[in-house]
Amino acid sequence: MPVNRGHLLTLLWAGSAYALFPDCVNGPLKNNTLCNTSASPAERARALVSLYTLEEKINATGSTAPGVPRLGIPPYEWWSEGLHGIAGPFTNFSDEGDYSYSTSFPQPILMGAAFDDELITAVATVISTEARAFNNANRTGLDFWTPNINPFRDPRWGRGQETPGEDPYHLSSYVHALIKGLQGDASDPYKRVVATCKHFAGYDVESWNGNLRYQFDAQISQQDLVEYYLPPFQSCARDSNVGAFMCSYNSVNGVPTCADPYLLQTILREHWGWTNEEQWVTSDCDAVQNIFLPHQWSSSREQAAADALIAGTDVNCGTYMPDHLPSAFAQGLVNETVLDQALVRQYSSLVRLGYFDAPENQPYRQLGFESVATNASQQLAYKAAVEGIVLLKNDGVLPLSLDSSTSLGLFGDWANATSDLLGNYAGISTYLHSPLWAAQQLNVTVNYAQGPGGQGDPTTGSWLSIWPAADASDVIIYVGGINNGVEAEGMDRGSIAWTGAQLDVIGQLAQQGKPMVVVQMGGGQIDSSPIANNPNISALLWGGYPGQDGGVAILDIITGKAAPAGRLPTTQYPASFINEVPMTDMSLRPGRSNPGRTYKWYNGTAVFEFGTGLHYTNFTASIKSNTSSSYAISDLMTICKDSNAKYPDLCSFGAPVQVEVTNTGKTTSDYVTLAYLAGNFGPAPHPKKSLVSYQRLFAINGGSSDTANLNLTLGSLARVDEKGNKVLYPGDYSLLIDNKPLTMLNFTLTGDQVILENWPQPPTNRTGKGVSGFEGYFVGGYGSDQKPVSIGY
Amino acid sequence: MPVNRGHLLTLLWAGSAYALFPDCVNGPLKNNTLCNTSASPAERARALVSLYTLEEKINATGSTAPGVPRLGIPPYEWWSEGLHGIAGPFTNFSDEGDYSYSTSFPQPILMGAAFDDELITAVATVISTEARAFNNANRTGLDFWTPNINPFRDPRWGRGQETPGEDPYHLSSYVHALIKGLQGDASDPYKRVVATCKHFAGYDVESWNGNLRYQFDAQISQQDLVEYYLPPFQSCARDSNVGAFMCSYNSVNGVPTCADPYLLQTILREHWGWTNEEQWVTSDCDAVQNIFLPHQWSSSREQAAADALIAGTDVNCGTYMPDHLPSAFAQGLVNETVLDQALVRQYSSLVRLGYFDAPENQPYRQLGFESVATNASQQLAYKAAVEGIVLLKNDGVLPLSLDSSTSLGLFGDWANATSDLLGNYAGISTYLHSPLWAAQQLNVTVNYAQGPGGQGDPTTGSWLSIWPAADASDVIIYVGGINNGVEAEGMDRGSIAWTGAQLDVIGQLAQQGKPMVVVQMGGGQIDSSPIANNPNISALLWGGYPGQDGGVAILDIITGKAAPAGRLPTTQYPASFINEVPMTDMSLRPGRSNPGRTYKWYNGTAVFEFGTGLHYTNFTASIKSNTSSSYAISDLMTICKDSNAKYPDLCSFGAPVQVEVTNTGKTTSDYVTLAYLAGNFGPAPHPKKSLVSYQRLFAINGGSSDTANLNLTLGSLARVDEKGNKVLYPGDYSLLIDNKPLTMLNFTLTGDQVILENWPQPPTNRTGKGVSGFEGYFVGGYGSDQKPVSIGY
Repeated sequence: MPVNRGHLLTLLWAGSAYALFPDCVNGPLKNNTLCNTSASPAERARALVSLYTLEEKINATGSTAPGVPRLGIPPYEWWSEGLHGIAGPFTNFSDEGDYSYSTSFPQPILMGAAFDDELITAVATVISTEARAFNNANRTGLDFWTPNINPFRDPRWGRGQETPGEDPYHLSSYVHALIKGLQGDASDPYKRVVATCKHFAGYDVESWNGNLRYQFDAQISQQDLVEYYLPPFQSCARDSNVGAFMCSYNSVNGVPTCADPYLLQTILREHWGWTNEEQWVTSDCDAVQNIFLPHQWSSSREQAAADALIAGTDVNCGTYMPDHLPSAFAQGLVNETVLDQALVRQYSSLVRLGYFDAPENQPYRQLGFESVATNASQQLAYKAAVEGIVLLKNDGVLPLSLDSSTSLGLFGDWANATSDLLGNYAGISTYLHSPLWAAQQLNVTVNYAQGPGGQGDPTTGSWLSIWPAADASDVIIYVGGINNGVEAEGMDRGSIAWTGAQLDVIGQLAQQGKPMVVVQMGGGQIDSSPIANNPNISALLWGGYPGQDGGVAILDIITGKAAPAGRLPTTQYPASFINEVPMTDMSLRPGRSNPGRTYKWYNGTAVFEFGTGLHYTNFTASIKSNTSSSYAISDLMTICKDSNAKYPDLCSFGAPVQVEVTNTGKTTSDYVTLAYLAGNFGPAPHPKKSLVSYQRLFAINGGSSDTANLNLTLGSLARVDEKGNKVLYPGDYSLLIDNKPLTMLNFTLTGDQVILENWPQPPTNRTGKGVSGFEGYFVGGYGSDQKPVSIGY
Repeated sequence: MPVNRGHLLTLLWAGSAYALFPDCVNGPLKNNTLCNTSASPAERARALVSLYTLEEKINATGSTAPGVPRLGIPPYEWWSEGLHGIAGPFTNFSDEGDYSYSTSFPQPILMGAAFDDELITAVATVISTEARAFNNANRTGLDFWTPNINPFRDPRWGRGQETPGEDPYHLSSYVHALIKGLQGDASDPYKRVVATCKHFAGYDVESWNGNLRYQFDAQISQQDLVEYYLPPFQSCARDSNVGAFMCSYNSVNGVPTCADPYLLQTILREHWGWTNEEQWVTSDCDAVQNIFLPHQWSSSREQAAADALIAGTDVNCGTYMPDHLPSAFAQGLVNETVLDQALVRQYSSLVRLGYFDAPENQPYRQLGFESVATNASQQLAYKAAVEGIVLLKNDGVLPLSLDSSTSLGLFGDWANATSDLLGNYAGISTYLHSPLWAAQQLNVTVNYAQGPGGQGDPTTGSWLSIWPAADASDVIIYVGGINNGVEAEGMDRGSIAWTGAQLDVIGQLAQQGKPMVVVQMGGGQIDSSPIANNPNISALLWGGYPGQDGGVAILDIITGKAAPAGRLPTTQYPASFINEVPMTDMSLRPGRSNPGRTYKWYNGTAVFEFGTGLHYTNFTASIKSNTSSSYAISDLMTICKDSNAKYPDLCSFGAPVQVEVTNTGKTTSDYVTLAYLAGNFGPAPHPKKSLVSYQRLFAINGGSSDTANLNLTLGSLARVDEKGNKVLYPGDYSLLIDNKPLTMLNFTLTGDQVILENWPQPPTNRTGKGVSGFEGYFVGGYGSDQKPVSIGY
């Protein structure tokens, strides 16, 4: 057994108290370059690291860093969470009074449905503001392990709720807006907080049929990797200057991502130019341990710690690096240069956060609890919920006309929801306004009965109080679906159908023949065709996890105080979809044992398509731009080159397309302009269409118009070939406005195809050293060993 | 919506208080035949039921029966649990003092490993005694929904822990002993309590890859049904006079079992002669609702309630029958004769429990808390744990020699187990003695550190305190494995491997080179080959869920205060087994996509076979009986017929086989004599072997012998054909003693084959009426639609 196993850390691990800031005025390092604000962050970090002993350096590789007391460097906890508000195991809420609550926004899946990037920046700005206030009170850190920006590939994924949806363009745009709000502008001398794009890469299986995230090897073709799995991460690294990345639990094509230099060095740092010293990679929690077991990539514990560090993992969430690097150094498995590099990255990042600088000159260091849960923040949480909620069916009964004589029946397990409103990774919110609470604020009679349940035994006993309450009601609202009991971290779904118990109760309620509204809750979609097809059910909404004011948002839409304009950010597949493809089949295109995934490739009939969303009015659209019907590719490339663009895929494709949207009805309403590209350009198979731009227009009055300006780039037009190169092909293109579509624009590209981006190819012969005695031990379940036909590497 | 939906029940549902007994001395029915103890139970029951209105009758069909106040019939709760001690939602433990605890025995899976039928009868006698004491205090009912006697077919099953194992003969013998202890002798004028054999039939999937128990349709061939799934139920119904059956959530070959007259009438009542009026069938909780949704067998809710009642379901756990039978009667879907029959069965059963009779003459009505958790009961709980624990590996380090200078390291998440000791369906036990507690009673130094965890994030942080504790220890004991967090009701396992986290910690502990013992806990087996194959790990034990004194039992075996003699009641498959067959494939024989199941048919190499169990000594065996080497089948049948046997399969095959067992070592030890039959008689494929008898011998001293008397029957020799008939075939037979085997007996049967039991064939064209709008909606997951090659019905 190796010695020096960092027993020091034992003392720190359990603690949630936060260290004070280092003291560059009176501390031991006041004259060190570290404290010289004129020096660059990297110079300052190098000056500090050069003072560390090897043991002190190694101790700094864990997420709960002990600091170096002799140098006045306090302990630091790298792990904070801020998915939709500050949260997580290391955020310390007070029991009462100041710092006992914060603002809790909807889950990203519902905020994604808003298709409103400015909203996302505003929300993220609130989160980073509240984070700074809590940090100043020594109640959380400065590094937030958010966003989860893996595309929501399979409806079974338990953590799909944490993402904005299934479309890579949408995610790329969303995450750019989010990072801006979390980190602030690049020109700001200090970052607001550091955001962390996770989980890099190919992570979207928790626990499906024996495939645990800790051991799952995602087999992904080079084409799918570049076309689908990586665009949001490219947006983070190349285009949004995100401060941190997190490598994931899974392997990609055989290599655990935290030990994969192809992902962490070749793609992330070299190809995407993510080479600023202040940028670092953390492992997911204990993903370094998992490199040894269950992945069996490295032949020993020491080798796993070394492999991760060498590949470019700079922080180990957990203790495996501090525990096993001493022995790895003793065995010569790793050298101090690579360790220094990791530490310089860590401390450069802290410098950019103002960690070492005097608080007087830092606005963020002045923030206190008066900046937390402000009226404006609460209103923003409400607005985010309203903007995301999607109307899927309406026979005209919505919005409901209520008066004081109305008797409103409210049923379903979400009707009186509390923490369910928030979903996972939630902090303590200011309040939790359920649909029942919201209904009770109206001047109507409310009849509520608990139930129907459906997870426990028996359930029918809890149904009996529903019937007299329904008998007494004029209108029936059922709020149900799924929650974190069936979709969660570590838990993928085994069914995407409504439970029989819920459908039984819904069906009995519908038999009353009264106006009836169903609100489908939860992040992953469930097949609502039995509700859509039931003529006795008047309306159907999807409400996701709507956050602290979610019940009010739902009731305001139902009663017409607000108008719905959200769009589904994922495909609602039929229940039978999960019978047609194993969750572990990562391929997007349809194949022998795969009906295809997402609205681009699914060859079945969706219950509700990606982008679906009704309104309380009707809209028309027309394209106002003067555009050409034909473009020479060579001309497009010349213009692009003349613009000195670093990345040709970001070059504009002409001027923004102006789309005039007219509200032809009476109800004032937002409208989300979705622009898809379709056409038979490039090699078959072709996607049905691809989202290339979107813009939300606000509060268009009946009879009025507004104009969306949609930016298209050469990248919008490009497709990805089998090697992962982005290619501009000649051919016929159609720009479709909205799902129906409301209008369209056709044009042609002529001339020879051009590669916009050459993708770096993976090395060959990448095999782990293995751990003897475990051959075939950590296996997934039956029917999960299907591989896509061609694998890039 | 139907009227009269039993709103009365609403008041009762939530209650856990128990009714008083009816008063046949001064009550309104004192002169009714119900109160005439000279009349038969059925006559008494009929007299009562004839007084009921239709509404009163319908109200009596739910498990929480409201009674009939005008007749002095109090409410009655049919649902009590007693899996390994009194338990369940409707058993009301006091907060302190009397009735605040009871005796909690090991889970059946560990008691099954004892292979000691007398132990099982003794345990069940304690449970029924304690049940009566609690019932007299108005704290539980008289009807116990135990045993779960479905064979443990697939290692993933979350409720396999509730069963005695995988072998149908073993289960049949065990359940006979259990029912004797729960119900008492048939000659007793009053039953102790009523036992309920569940779940009839083919129920052994909770939630596997989208296949939920509420909607799963088990496709079972007629041969497998009779040979594997039904023998324990035949033992219950035909041979043990059990008072109740429970029909299950699943369908069998398309028909929900609670609506299946072939199972409930043709097989259970007619073929097995279970026609005593005091015998009744309850549905599993809300299994009647499930007939409508998700099974979609019946076309309406009313039809589902009617179908269940007509098929022979007499009690509906839940409220679907009381809720929907009024409308079913109004629609003419069911008549009062079948409802009367159900109620006569219910009340006849209560008569046999003495429910209506004066308490003075009933010994069971005199029992109080002095009969609960007696010293003898506590000792029995300890003895049951010791008898079940199985020694799987021992390099000679066990039993450990400890003295006051020994420093003992205790690790693993089970080391300080509390409620984990009990498993599911547990009441409140007298105490919970963990392995740590037991070690601390020894005169040694104990070094304990929590961990390693492995479900939460991160885990390595909790490992750091393990290493210094291990450094300080002379001997290391690791107690871990699985618990109800991964195997539970409603939750099948996705992996049958040890977690990577546990194997990492075990491996690091083993590197110390000290004597090290691993105790594998949990009901389902996990592949322990990495432990078995690690030369640095000295010993391996399996401890199941050992009950309130389980920690003491484990430590007593490790330290040699007790000697291990338990045998594995299930096969320990390699981890890859779950990749080779979907859990939903119900076939036992190997096939194209199935390596076969149980020790009889599995064609791979088990890690540890069914019946494995080492001792602290060695045994030899020899057969002492004078047996013939050849038997004419016609002679056997003549002898059988002359004995007036009602069931030829129960006819003895000659005199008991006497097996003399000799302890050739020094340590006094129990020995379980396992007798298997093998041979190529009957059609291929042939099982490797089949358990036909067992007997546990007690405390055989070193150098001494004892004799097992093994009863064989014609049924022991029979095989089941594809139609389900039991057939005696000519051919060569071998009786093998023990797994190795230690000795064997060969004989031949000559002449023509004879059918011992003609199995009733299912009706043809059995299809449900269906529910429109749900075609293909409730689907299982990918890779789970494989069907066995031939289906009987």
